[in-house]
Amino acid sequence: MEHLINIKSLSTDDINKICNRASEFEKGIRRSNHINRHIANMFFENSTRTKLSFEMAENRISANKYNFDAGTSSINKGEDIYDTINNLSAIGINAVVLRHESNTLINELKEKTYYNTISFVNAGSGSSAHPTQALLDYYTIKKHFLDLKDKIIAITGDIVHSRVAKSNIELLKKFNAKIRCIAPIQFQDETLEGIDYYEDINKGFENADIVMALRIQRERIAEKIDFDEYINNYQITKDNLPYNALLMHPGPVNKDIEIKSDVLSMQNAKTILKQAENGVYIRMAILDMILSSYGI
Amino acid sequence: MEHLINIKSLSTDDINKICNRASEFEKGIRRSNHINRHIANMFFENSTRTKLSFEMAENRISANKYNFDAGTSSINKGEDIYDTINNLSAIGINAVVLRHESNTLINELKEKTYYNTISFVNAGSGSSAHPTQALLDYYTIKKHFLDLKDKIIAITGDIVHSRVAKSNIELLKKFNAKIRCIAPIQFQDETLEGIDYYEDINKGFENADIVMALRIQRERIAEKIDFDEYINNYQITKDNLPYNALLMHPGPVNKDIEIKSDVLSMQNAKTILKQAENGVYIRMAILDMILSSYGI
Amino acid sequence: MEHLINIKSLSTDDINKICNRASEFEKGIRRSNHINRHIANMFFENSTRTKLSFEMAENRISANKYNFDAGTSSINKGEDIYDTINNLSAIGINAVVLRHESNTLINELKEKTYYNTISFVNAGSGSSAHPTQALLDYYTIKKHFLDLKDKIIAITGDIVHSRVAKSNIELLKKFNAKIRCIAPIQFQDETLEGIDYYEDINKGFENADIVMALRIQRERIAEKIDFDEYINNYQITKDNLPYNALLMHPGPVNKDIEIKSDVLSMQNAKTILKQAENGVYIRMAILDMILSSYGI
Repeated sequence: MEHLINIKSLSTDDINKICNRASEFEKGIRRSNHINRHIANMFFENSTRTKLSFEMAENRISANKYNFDAGTSSINKGEDIYDTINNLSAIGINAVVLRHESNTLINELKEKTYYNTISFVNAGSGSSAHPTQALLDYYTIKKHFLDLKDKIIAITGDIVHSRVAKSNIELLKKFNAKIRCIAPIQFQDETLEGIDYYEDINKGFENADIVMALRIQRERIAEKIDFDEYINNYQITKDNLPYNALLMHPGPVNKDIEIKSDVLSMQNAKTILKQAENGVYIRMAILDMILSSYGI
Repeated sequence: MEHLINIKSLSTDDINKICNRASEFEKGIRRSNHINRHIANMFFENSTRTKLSFEMAENRISANKYNFDAGTSSINKGEDIYDTINNLSAIGINAVVLRHESNTLINELKEKTYYNTISFVNAGSGSSAHPTQALLDYYTIKKHFLDLKDKIIAITGDIVHSRVAKSNIELLKKFNAKIRCIAPIQFQDETLEGIDYYEDINKGFENADIVMALRIQRERIAEKIDFDEYINNYQITKDNLPYNALLMHPGPVNKDIEIKSDVLSMQNAKTILKQAENGVYIRMAILDMILSSYGI
Repeated sequence: MEHLINIKSLSTDDINKICNRASEFEKGIRRSNHINRHIANMFFENSTRTKLSFEMAENRISANKYNFDAGTSSINKGEDIYDTINNLSAIGINAVVLRHESNTLINELKEKTYYNTISFVNAGSGSSAHPTQALLDYYTIKKHFLDLKDKIIAITGDIVHSRVAKSNIELLKKFNAKIRCIAPIQFQDETLEGIDYYEDINKGFENADIVMALRIQRERIAEKIDFDEYINNYQITKDNLPYNALLMHPGPVNKDIEIKSDVLSMQNAKTILKQAENGVYIRMAILDMILSSYGI
């Protein structure tokens, strides 16, 4: 594995290998030492948790980390980033963890860098992909279900703008899960194949094994949709959440928007912090596999 | 020791244990390796020195450090910080060093985190407490005075708004020092017990063994008090500083405000940079004791 | 070597020693471990590449690094920085890597710090000096030319405002290179000795062994000079660049301003990323020599 750009490029075998390595890190039966490897975390969108999760993973595999925040570095957006990446490569950076508002920039960067080998890990690209989130969600699910075949997974919220939804759908289809998307018409994405849409949350949640909530961007939703109407029709509550369903959320939760506060203290919601924990093992596995491809 | 929130919760025995461990670090007869421990520095107020002092201490005990500056992270203030802390805990953070404008937030956080054990170290909370400053001040004083009983300590400046003053008073009372506060009426705090107030700096300084100056916030004082009048009546000068008194200041000094510039080159003022140096040993000791309570 | 402030203070022998040590680091035949040394990177001007290059060098010699960005720290500019530096010294910082808009501040800091020994490395001071850039340029040149005597080096662009030009000229004169500066009259600096000025780029480039382009500050140039006129008369193109000349640039390049885009894919321009790579070895050598002067 040289890059992790999206879920599409991974086979089910690749995905299981990543999860196996993550599990070895979780159990403490694998240790890695990449003291001579150097990873740049380039976050052009604000992030606390994903960035911390990558930093934690980098420290735990003993790689060197370098943080570039959009605000405080002089990195120019747009065309100049190609030069910046070639420079990072020349200076000795082995891998770039990139979060950027562009759907496609990471692919273009991968094609156009030429100095030394440099690996890219997608930490969130526009509304198109967030592959490490989908992998950690899968790793979390696999602790509860041996096989995803015919399991019903209900994804709820702003599907069309959600990179989390896109990557999860891509992954879950590979394992033949039954995917339902519960969303008002404005939040549906017609280009997605192999999923069923529900506008009625109760029908969508019927017999669901897993409910995946998405983060609603408060600041964006105001322009597009009646806020109260969304809450009335699509908020996850004690009443509509299936009794045994795992409740998942990529965090941070907007309490009383996509999920009613009192749901968060239910047993079903215990998964949410497990997702955060598991993210570290998944990212350790990915970075370890990428850096190991250089040899020592 | 699981947390360090304030001085009140420490016995004199606890305080002496911290100082003894700091002394072992200073002398180089103790080394610690917390390579598997992870500390988040969360500074919601600007800080250069205290933050650097903690970072230095973290490096010297070989812990992993993570910096969150209020400006560049997406941490929301107020209610959402509870979720953030639970996430940090899930991701694997063992201790949080927190500086925040709130007097009480750190206590509330300590009560409401529930995922894994996470320790809190107070690096300055509103105007209520700055326990590591009081501990390093005590450690500095103890190099000059074997026993604080009946020693006269004159604290000068804006007592009511100073977390440094509050924590120092709390600590010095435990060791039966004689505490005088020299301040105009607006800067006195009536709720503090066991201290004597002086409005006349010459009377307050009479026979003082130690003079503790506080940092006057130039930007705030303008609203409350006549600036020139404060300097005329309360500035520490070569004339009013007792000949043998140790002069202490938490830094950075506003030259020619709370202390006249020429005082800073006197032998009495040599203590100020020693405080900065000692802060690192004290913070090493505190973090080491907290992280060691997890075992290895 | 205790400090690196400018090129003037180095003999040719010093410069060759630095390059020899850099070469040992490049070849992997020297390793250093400064795990007990602490370096503060203080960048008061934005920087991505130079700062990353120093961070990479610090990690590779296993020193501890501390980053202060002008924006997020509470460091006051001007007079208070003296106190800050003395505090850093008291806290245990061994070396400061400083970039600042002032031409002279780093010299003043060196003179006025008094607590412990603290070393200064100039990472760019106003328009006066950028010694690590000149050293890495020399190291890069030496891989192509055994001796600089009588080699023709054509420096092109805004000489008067360029700290890169000043430090390179200082260094190249020590090795008896023939230095030409190609610049319009507004960008010439009359105070520089031992160089020849050319206003005609074709004459200036005649038989040149090396062409050093300078970064034109787009935002500044608008006030001073006709932009199109500069491009017409001074842009480096396939037509005017001598066939065998090394093309150098401190980066980042303003494409189609000082250099036409298509020039960057020529063999001559391959040097530019080599400069970035070599910068790490040079900075490792400098920091290693400075920190080693403390002994272990």
